[in-house]
Amino acid sequence: MPRTYARELAFGAPVAPGHGVLRPLGLCDVTIDDGFWAERQRVNGTTSIPHALAWEDKVGWVRNFVAAGAGESNRTGKDFSDSDVYKLLEAMVWESARLGDEALEREITRLAGVVAAAQAPDGYLNTHFGRPGLPARYSDFEWGHELYCYGHLFQAAVARIRCGHEDQLVEVALRAADHVCRVFGVGGTVAVCGHPEIEVGLVELGRATGRTQYIDQARLFIERRGHGLLKAIEWGQDYFQDDLPVRAAAVFRGHAVRAGYLAAGAVDVAVETGDQELLTAVRRQYDRTLARRTYLTGGMGSRHTGEAFGEDFELPPDRAYCETCAAIASVMVAWRLLLATGEEKYADVIERTAYNAIMCSPSLAGDAFFYANPLQLRWPGRQPDSDEPCPRAESGARAPWFTVSCCPPNVARFVASFGTQVATVEADRVRIHQFASGEIRAELASGHQVRLDVRTGYPADGRVEVTVLECDPSQEWSVALRVPGWAEIELDGLTRQGDLAVARGRFRPARRFVMDIDLAPRVIHPDPRIDAIRGCVAVERGPLVLCLESTDLPEGFSAEDLRVDVDETPVAVGDGARIAGWLLGQPEGHSWPYLAQPEPPGLRPEQVRLIPYRRWGNRGPSTMRVWLPRPEAELCVGAESGAANWPGRTADTGDTGDTDAVNVDPELGQPA
Amino acid sequence: MPRTYARELAFGAPVAPGHGVLRPLGLCDVTIDDGFWAERQRVNGTTSIPHALAWEDKVGWVRNFVAAGAGESNRTGKDFSDSDVYKLLEAMVWESARLGDEALEREITRLAGVVAAAQAPDGYLNTHFGRPGLPARYSDFEWGHELYCYGHLFQAAVARIRCGHEDQLVEVALRAADHVCRVFGVGGTVAVCGHPEIEVGLVELGRATGRTQYIDQARLFIERRGHGLLKAIEWGQDYFQDDLPVRAAAVFRGHAVRAGYLAAGAVDVAVETGDQELLTAVRRQYDRTLARRTYLTGGMGSRHTGEAFGEDFELPPDRAYCETCAAIASVMVAWRLLLATGEEKYADVIERTAYNAIMCSPSLAGDAFFYANPLQLRWPGRQPDSDEPCPRAESGARAPWFTVSCCPPNVARFVASFGTQVATVEADRVRIHQFASGEIRAELASGHQVRLDVRTGYPADGRVEVTVLECDPSQEWSVALRVPGWAEIELDGLTRQGDLAVARGRFRPARRFVMDIDLAPRVIHPDPRIDAIRGCVAVERGPLVLCLESTDLPEGFSAEDLRVDVDETPVAVGDGARIAGWLLGQPEGHSWPYLAQPEPPGLRPEQVRLIPYRRWGNRGPSTMRVWLPRPEAELCVGAESGAANWPGRTADTGDTGDTDAVNVDPELGQPA
Repeated sequence: MPRTYARELAFGAPVAPGHGVLRPLGLCDVTIDDGFWAERQRVNGTTSIPHALAWEDKVGWVRNFVAAGAGESNRTGKDFSDSDVYKLLEAMVWESARLGDEALEREITRLAGVVAAAQAPDGYLNTHFGRPGLPARYSDFEWGHELYCYGHLFQAAVARIRCGHEDQLVEVALRAADHVCRVFGVGGTVAVCGHPEIEVGLVELGRATGRTQYIDQARLFIERRGHGLLKAIEWGQDYFQDDLPVRAAAVFRGHAVRAGYLAAGAVDVAVETGDQELLTAVRRQYDRTLARRTYLTGGMGSRHTGEAFGEDFELPPDRAYCETCAAIASVMVAWRLLLATGEEKYADVIERTAYNAIMCSPSLAGDAFFYANPLQLRWPGRQPDSDEPCPRAESGARAPWFTVSCCPPNVARFVASFGTQVATVEADRVRIHQFASGEIRAELASGHQVRLDVRTGYPADGRVEVTVLECDPSQEWSVALRVPGWAEIELDGLTRQGDLAVARGRFRPARRFVMDIDLAPRVIHPDPRIDAIRGCVAVERGPLVLCLESTDLPEGFSAEDLRVDVDETPVAVGDGARIAGWLLGQPEGHSWPYLAQPEPPGLRPEQVRLIPYRRWGNRGPSTMRVWLPRPEAELCVGAESGAANWPGRTADTGDTGDTDAVNVDPELGQPA
Repeated sequence: MPRTYARELAFGAPVAPGHGVLRPLGLCDVTIDDGFWAERQRVNGTTSIPHALAWEDKVGWVRNFVAAGAGESNRTGKDFSDSDVYKLLEAMVWESARLGDEALEREITRLAGVVAAAQAPDGYLNTHFGRPGLPARYSDFEWGHELYCYGHLFQAAVARIRCGHEDQLVEVALRAADHVCRVFGVGGTVAVCGHPEIEVGLVELGRATGRTQYIDQARLFIERRGHGLLKAIEWGQDYFQDDLPVRAAAVFRGHAVRAGYLAAGAVDVAVETGDQELLTAVRRQYDRTLARRTYLTGGMGSRHTGEAFGEDFELPPDRAYCETCAAIASVMVAWRLLLATGEEKYADVIERTAYNAIMCSPSLAGDAFFYANPLQLRWPGRQPDSDEPCPRAESGARAPWFTVSCCPPNVARFVASFGTQVATVEADRVRIHQFASGEIRAELASGHQVRLDVRTGYPADGRVEVTVLECDPSQEWSVALRVPGWAEIELDGLTRQGDLAVARGRFRPARRFVMDIDLAPRVIHPDPRIDAIRGCVAVERGPLVLCLESTDLPEGFSAEDLRVDVDETPVAVGDGARIAGWLLGQPEGHSWPYLAQPEPPGLRPEQVRLIPYRRWGNRGPSTMRVWLPRPEAELCVGAESGAANWPGRTADTGDTGDTDAVNVDPELGQPA
């Protein structure tokens, strides 16, 4: 049952629903101090955020605000480049709150001033429109992205409020929000933005300030959508999700990021207005999208054309688009549904998507990013120019920046605020959704304040230890940990209750609870309705999807050349696995690749290393596959005759894999 | 060895190389009077050509020429809409020559006058550029298509010349060609057109008129290409094939139609200039493209993004683009290579591409067309509006016209001139490449004139009878028929010599030769390097690729639901086949489609009809598959237990296919 609770303004989280089953904890409540996420946050803060800021300066997107303030008409970048400045600002705000960084604070203040100088007296703010020599305001709802940019501005301002600063950035956002309500409110311009985002921004700004008119405006935008206000384009009205009212759609379709941001905004509006029908509709759409239109990594977006969803079960691994921003949008939806419904499965989705589809984007060094995140690469492709923004979403190598660079600042804000995904409060229960070493401080519904320590080597190690640091021994309360849907577990001090492991009672400080998750490699089979990966399997370890990268194969072999032996169990090695299979001999090739007889390839037995998918592409040009083919059943002729078929090679059936070598985790610099 | 031969100006064919192994025969030499191609030509002439003309009038592309002539600045359609008027003119010219149609002649003359009125005094001709209120001439080589349009104008004029008319259309073309040579010749503007086509047009115009400067200009355009003259775009320089010199490329890449037209022009230039290196390079590229980047249907183009080739073995059947124009471009290349080299395999390619990838485009009625020709459709999709040009290349149903409507007039000119694909002369040998009922009149190298009758029910019937109607009994000569690479044959009066069946001697009229081609259905297996169709087979009959259309399944089933039994031989039925397989029970569906165990579906045995792929989509909304999955080997649990797994259905293992029903060929109105 949804419950209303007091709204804490400055608890440091991006999403603070007025009611729901779970109440989120923010950066003021959760500290991550070690392990995987601490390291990701360290790299994000020391490298990715400054890197993004340097690029935004270099390509002129910050200067656009200065030019706008000076009334000049020259500017650089796409129509929506303002939004990437706002997203980076939001990242900086979370990062500053996380670390308490004075220098960062000054930088935020400086940038807020630059942004403020570009705002028109009536609150309008956009560096691409509305000045002499530039297109007029609100002259292009399909592609202008003006409302989209406001949405990100609002999210940055909400971050500022929730981190305890009511400053110039907030004033700018409020003036802009008031302007939006005046222009687009009831009786005003009946329009929607081609790219949803203002909806989540408005609702959150309303939640953070108590100004319900912002929530009303968000609802108006949601209700207006789906009636063909936007001009039809070649990719179809569904590209913009303007073909059907939100509550009437069956599944996510069209442009994947747009679809996700819209759904998140619809959940926000539904929660604030008590619209159970709308909430149910979005939830049903999201569930169906997970069931039929989502990649193993949690990535969404099957087509380059329109950066869009495909049809049900259209999930090609090579032409998967899986835009980083679409994965972040998916997590936004899942998080809101988790808070609204308490259904722990949504935290499973967040975990999978975060570890694979999102964290694949940044390089280990934090200074290059994937925009599209395919699950297969046959050719290493073009290497991006490290001095110029990469124009293309596809190349097989991460790029330092893009002409459309929505993904890097999105990753930055996601990583900086990851602490807000870790735990929630449900009456007198603390629920831990994501496993990261650190401290959780929570005030339960009764006012009882508790502190927990979490220690874990996750995702490399499956043991999660939770220790009570502080509580009132006279009060009864609960601690609950998410049990991942794929997991075999052992518990100490906790009891399994569905998808939670729970302990309830009156605890003393030092009380410890342990969940041990089996991280043995798991072989995954695709639903047979997915054509493109028929006959393949994948391997997972814990939350990590694994992949084969050619860097781990003998010289001259491609990831395309492996056939996997599904009768042999994969062996855990480091944070990846070792599997048994065969490498194909290099066939002569046919002049026409459609044959009267199935073709038995020469096969050489091989033990092969699989690594976490999110780490691929950090060791130079390579080919990669997540889904690994089994040999055609009638073609697997066995090791000896397979080797005899091996053109030009010795009939060597020995094991050539690096079975017992110590594997050094390149990220932690320690043996894995 | 290439041989030089007298150039017949008015023999009625689009391609007339100055030398080559084979000399083409034109519409003056070959008559098709019955059977499959006669019917296609009838529909094309009585319906498709008037249909296209009516649409070009309706959407204003003809009127554009009138407006241009009047100096007005208003116009409709894309930058290149002029080219579709030229292509339709070309189709009309071939059709008129084929039939001797006075009314059509008058229409051609009328249109030629309309076109002529738009030409500037200096020979420039394009309704989209170069007048007040419109963009300037030659201001946009990437997308302006001005040279592309000339190319199609030249091809129309060449048709006119070769069909015996030196009229206004020819004058217009010559003035334009001279203008092009002046502006873009040596010492002139160093540019190439974003869309190749002018190269084939210039060479043919040079061949038809003897004006070698046109051939020089074509060579100049070929040599200029590949040095980055065109601005880089997001899809890459290879989109325009401007990333590598033509002779340096390894394979066709980028936009498929552009790649094909460029290659055809390069072969033409190579043949006329004796550039063996260039000819060999293009041939090698084409061969590699056939081996790695071509669909079973002969279609080319794996990606909607950029309407482009993908990587080697990237051949998804659902997102196959296979633009009709790309298939026609492939045939243009194959035809030129066939003439230049005499390699009969190129006629195999032409046959496969024509019957499947090209003739899939027009509906049986000839008044609607596919633009993209996928090999799988999961959902029937949006039905195009029959009154408006269809904006999208994808919908699962043919459309009467498109905003980009290059395909319908391309189909029209291809079908009208198909007689020119049928036979060639090689010294004293007549070679028959394509099987169609009709008459072939040929003058051999010695001047010996012969006439042959061909009778065949191909592709429904495999018997090809060739009868000598007229020849000099004292002269020794040869008749040769292509033996398709996939064919088992029986011969009467002919001897197998590699990929030809040959008879040589001194023949009398009434002498008969017979080739009987076995048209039993053939099961085809894909090269295992093609991921998306792993575990699938396809079925062919003769030159026809077959498919499963849901119209032929029990109510409620989709083409996705079939699993094929590869242990049972398909049975010929009509012009298609009947196969044994299983229909999937409708699974409950999983909330996450990646499973810890492979999933055994409920399977119900079924006999299923397959029809020729080119005929699909003519019976209302449906789903379709060419590549049919085999059951996962471990899941094929047998008929009885499979039926027991069938949720909610009776355990009926009876044969429910229409095994003995008389199948009426919908095209011929007769029992098949």
